[in-house]
Amino acid sequence: MAKNFDVIVIGAGPAGYVAAIRCAQLGLSTACIDQWEVDGKGVLGGTCLNVGCIPSKALLETADLFHKAQHKMQGHGIKVSKPSIDIAAMQARKQELVQKLTGGVAQLFKAHKITAFYGHGRLMADKNVTVVDSKTNKVSDTLTAKDIIIATGSTPIELGSMPFDHKSILDSEDLLALDAVPKKLTIVGAGVIGLELGSVWNNLGSDVTLLEATDKFLPMAEPAIAREAARVFKADGLKVELGAMVKKATKSGKSLTVEYEQGGKTHKIKTDKLAVLVGRKPNTVDLLAPDCGVDLDERGCIAVDEYCQTKVPGIWAIGDVVRGPMLAHKGSEEGVHVAEAIAGKGKHALDLNCVPSVIYTHPEISWVGKTETELKEAGVAYNSANFPFAASGRALASGSGSGQIRVLADKQTDRILGVHMIGEHTSEILAEAVFAMQYQASAEDLGRTIHAHPTLSEALKEAALGISKSAIHKK
Amino acid sequence: MAKNFDVIVIGAGPAGYVAAIRCAQLGLSTACIDQWEVDGKGVLGGTCLNVGCIPSKALLETADLFHKAQHKMQGHGIKVSKPSIDIAAMQARKQELVQKLTGGVAQLFKAHKITAFYGHGRLMADKNVTVVDSKTNKVSDTLTAKDIIIATGSTPIELGSMPFDHKSILDSEDLLALDAVPKKLTIVGAGVIGLELGSVWNNLGSDVTLLEATDKFLPMAEPAIAREAARVFKADGLKVELGAMVKKATKSGKSLTVEYEQGGKTHKIKTDKLAVLVGRKPNTVDLLAPDCGVDLDERGCIAVDEYCQTKVPGIWAIGDVVRGPMLAHKGSEEGVHVAEAIAGKGKHALDLNCVPSVIYTHPEISWVGKTETELKEAGVAYNSANFPFAASGRALASGSGSGQIRVLADKQTDRILGVHMIGEHTSEILAEAVFAMQYQASAEDLGRTIHAHPTLSEALKEAALGISKSAIHKK
Repeated sequence: MAKNFDVIVIGAGPAGYVAAIRCAQLGLSTACIDQWEVDGKGVLGGTCLNVGCIPSKALLETADLFHKAQHKMQGHGIKVSKPSIDIAAMQARKQELVQKLTGGVAQLFKAHKITAFYGHGRLMADKNVTVVDSKTNKVSDTLTAKDIIIATGSTPIELGSMPFDHKSILDSEDLLALDAVPKKLTIVGAGVIGLELGSVWNNLGSDVTLLEATDKFLPMAEPAIAREAARVFKADGLKVELGAMVKKATKSGKSLTVEYEQGGKTHKIKTDKLAVLVGRKPNTVDLLAPDCGVDLDERGCIAVDEYCQTKVPGIWAIGDVVRGPMLAHKGSEEGVHVAEAIAGKGKHALDLNCVPSVIYTHPEISWVGKTETELKEAGVAYNSANFPFAASGRALASGSGSGQIRVLADKQTDRILGVHMIGEHTSEILAEAVFAMQYQASAEDLGRTIHAHPTLSEALKEAALGISKSAIHKK
Repeated sequence: MAKNFDVIVIGAGPAGYVAAIRCAQLGLSTACIDQWEVDGKGVLGGTCLNVGCIPSKALLETADLFHKAQHKMQGHGIKVSKPSIDIAAMQARKQELVQKLTGGVAQLFKAHKITAFYGHGRLMADKNVTVVDSKTNKVSDTLTAKDIIIATGSTPIELGSMPFDHKSILDSEDLLALDAVPKKLTIVGAGVIGLELGSVWNNLGSDVTLLEATDKFLPMAEPAIAREAARVFKADGLKVELGAMVKKATKSGKSLTVEYEQGGKTHKIKTDKLAVLVGRKPNTVDLLAPDCGVDLDERGCIAVDEYCQTKVPGIWAIGDVVRGPMLAHKGSEEGVHVAEAIAGKGKHALDLNCVPSVIYTHPEISWVGKTETELKEAGVAYNSANFPFAASGRALASGSGSGQIRVLADKQTDRILGVHMIGEHTSEILAEAVFAMQYQASAEDLGRTIHAHPTLSEALKEAALGISKSAIHKK
């Protein structure tokens, strides 16, 4: 007989587990299904905690410290020997962190009396969900509920011309788990993940080249910020080839030759490892029984409305498996909204314009709202102003005086339309900008708020003041 | 004959130079007088840039990197030799930074056509200001203006029982400029400056004891945050003696013996250096001619109203020399307000409740608004919630999982009344809290705003959610 719950959540990544916790907080009996396994044991947390946001931040931290030991300590008068890196120790630290956090989710589930099922969840007709045991491939449980939340996440896109072998042709998970620094690393795709992991291995000593198909670097970012980012990465030794269409990868012994076309010419790179980081696709394989009633949209996502409702009443979908940016915090917030809707607290639609984006390189690239490119295309009249960290006392004291903050505001109303940053710790400074945008603040509102001195966040105030030509530390 | 300006600013610290720049931006002809000298040459920027906020942050950064090289790299798999510190190189880096920033203010003055006068400014009758040459002690210039802004700042308080000799009995400026790590350093006063500079030298290898007269550690901070700070500093080896009343300091050869009473007993500490960091007093010596018309208040500050106006129309005072916290950003904001009032843009009163405070130790201690102690005393009903960085993925990835964020909100209206933090980079995270308080946001407003994952600022969202018992990552 089917086990009955108020809510079943399929997927225990940052969208699903957050939805499950919020459901349980609101008094709903909740089940959550996930198929992630480590050493044959089910683990919660999904891509984000296991092989995404969290482990990548652990490696970025190590790589940055290593970079500081090599290049920054001397200038402070700190004398150390030339550092070396023990990759096994670095990876052990990363794994310990991952285990702590996934274990933390398990503890939260226990505390909230959420029932975890380990296996592959499949949505059947009449709001039944089967759990398929990954070892036996048999249905281990059948669950049913008034409300079902699909939060199955996403998975790396593979290129037909260079399929993952997880040894020399790698996906992002493999690239996070290397046991040695590759002498030469080639990455297909100069997006967020390519830049983050590319700069990790670059800082640790690898010779890294990113092959990007589009002609523009970081086309989703503010043009001035993308230009500065390109300069910084180049100075750090990260090579980015734009308009580079990869054709094939040929193995020869332990190395690979990657062939790509650029500007009508064919180029070849010999490389030790090749990572294909060209994006992610929604996880819908074996998820929907034909008669479950839920549709996919034209991009293969679960089709939902602005409230994350599918066309079947009581079936919802959130996170990477639906439209919108594939970002953990976007999925988590949708999880909270859906849980509250199910609990009868009213429906909320997420304002996608107020979802922050961050590339966690050093320096960090962080933004929210519209870019100049988007405003021009939309014909919106705007003012823009920037403030460079080179004029920030705190940035210079920290030895990180590169980067800038740029504010875009409506020409008529002064309402903030976008905030774009490159610089150390801008992922944290961004929070104030998101809050200001969420509450429809004007640039003057930001500019008139006291910021502690000396902090990097003063640069946001100064950029906002720049809109009315009243920045203090910039002529 | 007196040189005539629209505005004369006495003092070129962060209150005065910002006021001068804003006046000039608004089209006012502006003079600014300062007596700070380095190697016999006048220098702008005041205490903050020369011997305050900026150089202390430079040393805090070096000391933190040194600490990381000693204690943190190993855990990341980074192998370096035991680090040593070249104090002369550290100090040279600091001085280079100071020169860059004070030079930057000089450039801004030039760009804004502000006339700088180097010497001691004195307010005479009838809105005349004399500039006294510090070498000749003669009046070098007499200036007059419709509006005069006094921004003369503050200076360290000296104890009669242990006057500064600037060799073994030190003020904060001396303590910033040491040319070697003292084996034993004793600091009178465990306030902001004592903790910041105490932890610098502690991290660099000194054996540091702070003697604090009050019975409570950080009485101005939130009690829970102060308790956590006390634990962290203790674990770092910083010794803090509370209720310790210093009596005298006796020199014997190159060392000193400091005598203090604690709990009815007399104690003696032998120390290499003794720093007296018991606070600062407003700079009013030789400032006001008897017939200038401006008064001091009962604490020796220039008496002003909420708009920074003295009782003489057109004479204003801002920054450390008036009531309110002695903080650079408070002075700067008053400078902007007064400049705009003079230019006929309307008068603004600073909301002292929205002035942020930071102690820039590692971890940083940051707050804005009321503490629980203050709310209890005022009989305000409030809810409180906290979120520990131990539950933050980003904090753990960075290896800085100690600390917490605490939010206090009105029980009736949910309006945020205070936000208190201890943890790495909280000085930056604080900016969002200040903005939220400035615009009278509720805890729910903060809790419903998306924060990028994984960032430390998510802890602020979670703490705010805790007010309505809906934090996700805390049971």
